[in-house]
Amino acid sequence: MLTNDVLDQWDRENFFHPSTHLAQHARGESASRIISGAKDCHIEDRNGNRVLDGFAGLYCVNAGYGRREITDAIAKQASELSYYHAYAGHGTEASITLAKMVMDRAPAHMSKVYFGLGGSDANETNIKLLWYYNNILGRPEKKKVISRWRGYHGSGLMTGSLTGLSLFHAKFDLPLDGVLHTVAPDFFRRENLEQSEAEFVAYCVEHLEEMIALEGADTIAAFIGEPVLGTGGIVPPPEGYWAAIQAVLQKHDIALIADEVVTGFGRLGSMFGSDHYDLKPDFITIAKGLTSAYAPLSGSIVSDKVWKVLEQGADENGVMGHGWTYAAHPIGAAAGVANLQLIEDLDLIGNARDVGAYLNQQMRAAVGDHPHVGDVRGEGMLCAVELVKDREGRKFYDPADKIGVQVVAALLSSGVIGRAMPQGDIIGFAPPFCLTRAEADEIVEKTKAAIHQVLGA
Amino acid sequence: MLTNDVLDQWDRENFFHPSTHLAQHARGESASRIISGAKDCHIEDRNGNRVLDGFAGLYCVNAGYGRREITDAIAKQASELSYYHAYAGHGTEASITLAKMVMDRAPAHMSKVYFGLGGSDANETNIKLLWYYNNILGRPEKKKVISRWRGYHGSGLMTGSLTGLSLFHAKFDLPLDGVLHTVAPDFFRRENLEQSEAEFVAYCVEHLEEMIALEGADTIAAFIGEPVLGTGGIVPPPEGYWAAIQAVLQKHDIALIADEVVTGFGRLGSMFGSDHYDLKPDFITIAKGLTSAYAPLSGSIVSDKVWKVLEQGADENGVMGHGWTYAAHPIGAAAGVANLQLIEDLDLIGNARDVGAYLNQQMRAAVGDHPHVGDVRGEGMLCAVELVKDREGRKFYDPADKIGVQVVAALLSSGVIGRAMPQGDIIGFAPPFCLTRAEADEIVEKTKAAIHQVLGA
Ligand SMILES: Cc1ncc(COP(=O)(O)O)c(C=O)c1O
Ligand SMILES: Cc1ncc(COP(=O)(O)O)c(C=O)c1O
Repeated sequence: MLTNDVLDQWDRENFFHPSTHLAQHARGESASRIISGAKDCHIEDRNGNRVLDGFAGLYCVNAGYGRREITDAIAKQASELSYYHAYAGHGTEASITLAKMVMDRAPAHMSKVYFGLGGSDANETNIKLLWYYNNILGRPEKKKVISRWRGYHGSGLMTGSLTGLSLFHAKFDLPLDGVLHTVAPDFFRRENLEQSEAEFVAYCVEHLEEMIALEGADTIAAFIGEPVLGTGGIVPPPEGYWAAIQAVLQKHDIALIADEVVTGFGRLGSMFGSDHYDLKPDFITIAKGLTSAYAPLSGSIVSDKVWKVLEQGADENGVMGHGWTYAAHPIGAAAGVANLQLIEDLDLIGNARDVGAYLNQQMRAAVGDHPHVGDVRGEGMLCAVELVKDREGRKFYDPADKIGVQVVAALLSSGVIGRAMPQGDIIGFAPPFCLTRAEADEIVEKTKAAIHQVLGA
Repeated sequence: MLTNDVLDQWDRENFFHPSTHLAQHARGESASRIISGAKDCHIEDRNGNRVLDGFAGLYCVNAGYGRREITDAIAKQASELSYYHAYAGHGTEASITLAKMVMDRAPAHMSKVYFGLGGSDANETNIKLLWYYNNILGRPEKKKVISRWRGYHGSGLMTGSLTGLSLFHAKFDLPLDGVLHTVAPDFFRRENLEQSEAEFVAYCVEHLEEMIALEGADTIAAFIGEPVLGTGGIVPPPEGYWAAIQAVLQKHDIALIADEVVTGFGRLGSMFGSDHYDLKPDFITIAKGLTSAYAPLSGSIVSDKVWKVLEQGADENGVMGHGWTYAAHPIGAAAGVANLQLIEDLDLIGNARDVGAYLNQQMRAAVGDHPHVGDVRGEGMLCAVELVKDREGRKFYDPADKIGVQVVAALLSSGVIGRAMPQGDIIGFAPPFCLTRAEADEIVEKTKAAIHQVLGA
């Protein structure tokens, strides 16, 4: 058996990690954590440390770790047929069944699902389809996409452009032309502290209207947004936000892409964020919760309205030249079928709703009036604590102080994983849906202790 | 158990297939094939049809179907740990071991591997890293990428732009700005039939030099190419091509991205196309053969030269904001480790070389002088037959006649899968590496019969 030392050396010499400080890692200055096993809400590393994963991987292991129902389905599919492609009308029992299960769960006005691999490529597919759609409709100028600051939509050139976080733009020459960012629907971080929630919504709408007027509605194809801002800070929308935004989009015939990579399949305590906030999107992006990350699989769900145009276009244009070799991969499809079934059988969405509400309520009670806690917020099985230097004046810390990173490190030492969200001192939680109340209590207590340890009582 | 009828209906109602004629499929005018099992070089559908897969899925099931060594590794990994992310220095025994195995096999001047999901996202990563690299080096203008007509590099907005095939551009507004295409190194299709192979290479070089002079070398970051053109027609490079092109790139400090998604890990009968043609790339793209498609996994291998700059840049810029949730997914990593080990243990690369040479030789003997065969070509376990209307004047058929599609359909009826490559009447073969001589004979005989059936003797 390989020793940890050998693996550590191989790692630093050969493995180019995502979202990592390359130099510190190569020089051995930052930890290399080798994860070896996991069960329900806990993961274990090769040094025998077992911790409560309050972020479900990257908010993706929704069903919890080590689910036999899913791993058996993967093993069965692997032994029957590990791979065949889905081009030119090919499918497998698993991929077809999953398409049916996804569409049964999606809002009624949605039509079909294109399966990809990860959330980024699914958003890329959405943009490609949108452009194709507007070309079929004879609107070649209608191509720009409006996203929001603090949105997260992926890490590719286009999807990283849609993302509205500086870490993903800097040094990559992003955003690309044709991608615009409007106001982040983050009431806590509103520039004008005088604004009420309703005033802030009006301000978001006004800004959007101005951007559309400036650019011309006939140049704007779509607006993309997460029902709840995720990586940008786990921020539920202000009251009335989505209804007001949708009215603007409808007026200007701008498509709505609901990026439900985090919210899809239950994280808000409802099947989709679109149900939760009464959205009527033209595209829905799905990934993480589709398979609970047991295997890579994503999807772009298109509406009846979009599908009709694409179908009509096919009679003019023939085969659509868009495909990934691993689109609708059988292993991912089998994992998806088992995962969605399990979520239903165990009513994990109900648990996400109940225990998520409990987690949020307890967190608010435990740290809500700490002098350096500016905001405690969440929805369903999402919860965040935002730290501030000065609570009264809502003054933020200098990013160089890395307060969020310090709190998360203290938390990890105590046995709980939280995530320091990338922009702001925001401690995020997105546990598996099977979180128990006792585990929620543990997250809350240890978060409180970590905050006290770093920032005092 | 679900009947085929039910699945067929679910399929057409819910499943948005890649690279498919959407309208014909939705209306039930084209076949929906539900693949249910596979072993070695054969796949089987739910109607009980068993056929010889002469294209190994999408030239990806290199080790052959149904390999217990790989499916057991997937099942074992799934049961131990289906998922954890690789951000911020996290890894698993499988992902670290695979990084080491990849780098042990890659050309000696390569440094590290970034794991993604599919070939498209790996090429996207290459472009992102390249831009980042040139920004660190203080060369913000050096960003354009030169690709070749007939190249295939993926299906995203950037990677579809790099692709030089009209099917992947039309109606998608591609290529994006900043992507240029130079001459396809396809000697058979050279415009000037008078040119010798050496003259054609000189012409390719001249065209490249002109493009660089016109744009300015300081605006051009990279040249991307497949060692052997794949989807563009399975075209080995003319003699001396790569040496001549590399000399130009070196002169102008333009990076070389070797897209080895098809050629990596043995398809040419050597470990990498870079070994085969003596390339010294700065980036190597890998996917398909890395896992033999048993699970989605790709990689961007960067050279020592590139890595050094990225590492140095990290001390200035901190964490690199580039990551996919499923980067280095444990299931893909476990499949990769088992696959690369199996390929070595069974010397499947040796078999690809031997039986591939036999397949090419027999194909040439069987159909090489058919009046409508313009070219028979290949390298390693890649083989193509290009059909022409008129052999002497090298006149091509009208694409509307769909000659290639017809031949492939006839071939399928006889029990062999070949692929009608998308641009030209080119019948492509890329069987699993475990192809036997008897199976090679079957491909050849049935291809001959199919050509005769469609085009006469
Ligand atoms: C809302 C949202 N969209 C898209 C993505 C990108 O998904 P992936 O990392 O699988 O490419 C993410 C990933 O966190 C996400 O949170
Ligand atoms: C040379 C090459 N590069 C990239 C790709 C894209 O890979 P994927 O389909 O996995 O995105 C392919 C796919 O056929 C390919 O042949």
